Amino acid sequence: MSQAQSARGAHILIAAESLIAANGLAGLSMRAVATEAGVSLAQVQYYFGSKDALIMAALEHANTGFLSRISPLLEEPSSTQRLHDLIMHWLPVDPERERRVKVWLAFAALAPAHPALVAVTRETDRQLSRWIAEELETLGVDDPAPAAARLLALVDGLAIRCLTLGSRSRANLIRQVLDGYLQELLGDS
Amino acid sequence: MSQAQSARGAHILIAAESLIAANGLAGLSMRAVATEAGVSLAQVQYYFGSKDALIMAALEHANTGFLSRISPLLEEPSSTQRLHDLIMHWLPVDPERERRVKVWLAFAALAPAHPALVAVTRETDRQLSRWIAEELETLGVDDPAPAAARLLALVDGLAIRCLTLGSRSRANLIRQVLDGYLQELLGDS
Repeated sequence: MSQAQSARGAHILIAAESLIAANGLAGLSMRAVATEAGVSLAQVQYYFGSKDALIMAALEHANTGFLSRISPLLEEPSSTQRLHDLIMHWLPVDPERERRVKVWLAFAALAPAHPALVAVTRETDRQLSRWIAEELETLGVDDPAPAAARLLALVDGLAIRCLTLGSRSRANLIRQVLDGYLQELLGDS
Repeated sequence: MSQAQSARGAHILIAAESLIAANGLAGLSMRAVATEAGVSLAQVQYYFGSKDALIMAALEHANTGFLSRISPLLEEPSSTQRLHDLIMHWLPVDPERERRVKVWLAFAALAPAHPALVAVTRETDRQLSRWIAEELETLGVDDPAPAAARLLALVDGLAIRCLTLGSRSRANLIRQVLDGYLQELLGDS
């Protein structure tokens, strides 16, 4: 997909993400996305061809959006604080991040039945695991690969558990689970 | 709901759970559940009245089914091994447990938009957190409440991450994440 086409289709992908965040993937239709985006069904079909292609594009768009959000942080030197801040981008602590968690959850629920989604999910997980392991190694963790796998599982579970809590309980749970875990793992480095 | 009605409606709830595990909740219809269960739409309506009532009953049925599976373990004395075995009932290591994780994930994805589901989810989480905290205290963990919150987040995230892996990778990830974490938390107690 060319940069121009990606930019032109973005309003459709944003509409698709809103619907996915609200209702999951099972009920998604090209027509509903067109209505949500305020464009014709023909336009959605022109950009994405099929519902499956639209879903794959929405997943890639969500991943790209996440990476662009965290990229300024990636310029900073490694520190426990930076790792904490990066992880906070993955937790539902504002409306944008909450939408992102819901989109991720919808894909996680659907992925096992769809080999193409499994492939994207595995590749994303592999990259994330490697990156976090390198980060933990830099921060002095002795056995970084399993520690990274544990941290990623912890953060995914935390994100889900936050979704059914009000904002104050979310903040408390994040402090208890994430801050407490990083403290144990890294001390005050 | 009387015991007899619960038993008579169970085949419909099992059919509903199969559909939820396969396609999530958004696309669920009373008609599809009737077809899956091999009964008439009228019979599904007779038992459950509305789609919302059916969904709530399916959630309760899934929770009850989980509790009945683990109840023999609850008779045993506390040990790290028992805690490990209990947690393994929550991970997708056989077809039944995999179906359970998928049903849970579908509810987790939908719950934030539905106050009744939020209430059930929170209450289940509260009970589980309390139970795990007591268990960890018995096993000698100093600060059991945050340790329980961390363990529950870790296990939820692990369950999701397992779903996109083949069975050998699942076993490896479980060893790395869960066994490693319990070892760190509890030693060889």
